[in-house]
Amino acid sequence: MSLDGYVAGPNQTLEQPLGEGGERLHEWVFPLASFRERHGLAGGETNADDEVVAESLRKTGAVVMGRRMFSGGEGAWANDPNADAWWGDDPPFRVPVFVLTHHPRETVVKQGGTSFTFVTDGIEAALEQARAAAGDKDISLAGGASVAQQYLKAGLLDELQIHVAPVLLGGGVSLFDRLGIEPFELERTRVIESPSVTHLRFNVVRAG
Amino acid sequence: MSLDGYVAGPNQTLEQPLGEGGERLHEWVFPLASFRERHGLAGGETNADDEVVAESLRKTGAVVMGRRMFSGGEGAWANDPNADAWWGDDPPFRVPVFVLTHHPRETVVKQGGTSFTFVTDGIEAALEQARAAAGDKDISLAGGASVAQQYLKAGLLDELQIHVAPVLLGGGVSLFDRLGIEPFELERTRVIESPSVTHLRFNVVRAG
Repeated sequence: MSLDGYVAGPNQTLEQPLGEGGERLHEWVFPLASFRERHGLAGGETNADDEVVAESLRKTGAVVMGRRMFSGGEGAWANDPNADAWWGDDPPFRVPVFVLTHHPRETVVKQGGTSFTFVTDGIEAALEQARAAAGDKDISLAGGASVAQQYLKAGLLDELQIHVAPVLLGGGVSLFDRLGIEPFELERTRVIESPSVTHLRFNVVRAG
Repeated sequence: MSLDGYVAGPNQTLEQPLGEGGERLHEWVFPLASFRERHGLAGGETNADDEVVAESLRKTGAVVMGRRMFSGGEGAWANDPNADAWWGDDPPFRVPVFVLTHHPRETVVKQGGTSFTFVTDGIEAALEQARAAAGDKDISLAGGASVAQQYLKAGLLDELQIHVAPVLLGGGVSLFDRLGIEPFELERTRVIESPSVTHLRFNVVRAG
């Protein structure tokens, strides 16, 4: 997230899925060994940032994401030019992924442990399926912002990990945009800093 | 600032100048010795948060603020029910304060070193006057959000100090609301954490 609250830049397209300037928010992650390994690349940095990412990957037993994060599209799958998503045959997740959508579709099994299951009956159903798949590991809510807000408002988020990139983006997709909720109390449980990012972790204490 | 970017709650009034729920953002500061001393109260906590506040107070030679922060009002002073501001005869600033307004008014000299000078010819003029008053000390831009955004966009801010309270407020006055700028690079220069707040400090590296 940028300091002004954006998790993607404005004007997201298939060519620029993170929006204009949105790559800036993720710059810190690209050189890391744990990120590179998940993308089939050798080497990379092993530092405090890498440990944060490696820990998340290690602890994640299932992933939930929105349709737009999955493909950038909407509507019927037959008309979605990116229906096979961004990640090719060996996606970096390596666990079952549950994609929220209004459009039914058969589960897609990829290499390396990743599967994409399409859930059409809502966020609670997706969470339930993810929980069954995750065993005693965590369920990672990958995004986007709209899905994160839905889970937060429903009181279904236990923890927030925010990686604050030192930039004011000026516009884009806001993670917490006008939630319109009663205040949610948080408990900050960890701060890890590096020159390129500040990792803040919070428990969600109380739903509003 | 709340984690979702608000520096005051919604529906600010004279009775509730920080808006609904806005007091929550400042809870961490009220018990501190340095805050209490400035408000004529003895005792208080001396901890990491207190040192952050004490340092800011020590380094500040002049303050700039917007009219709404000063009185909550707008328009002609004669019609402003809070034209003498919130802070009584001995305001906590103890340095010259420059108030941005469209409505001319004589400087008001208070006890303890605080004076309020009303600047009607814009943010650069206010900065210039504050700089002359501050000597070799810092100029603190006290707020509100709109004034902070004006100085930021004009490339006149050197440093941002953000005190992140562990709460999602859900609505209110957003510090960085839709700046509509090209990205500003920041350099995070300090993180200080306590159970009640996370103090992030940034240099503004480049205007967009």
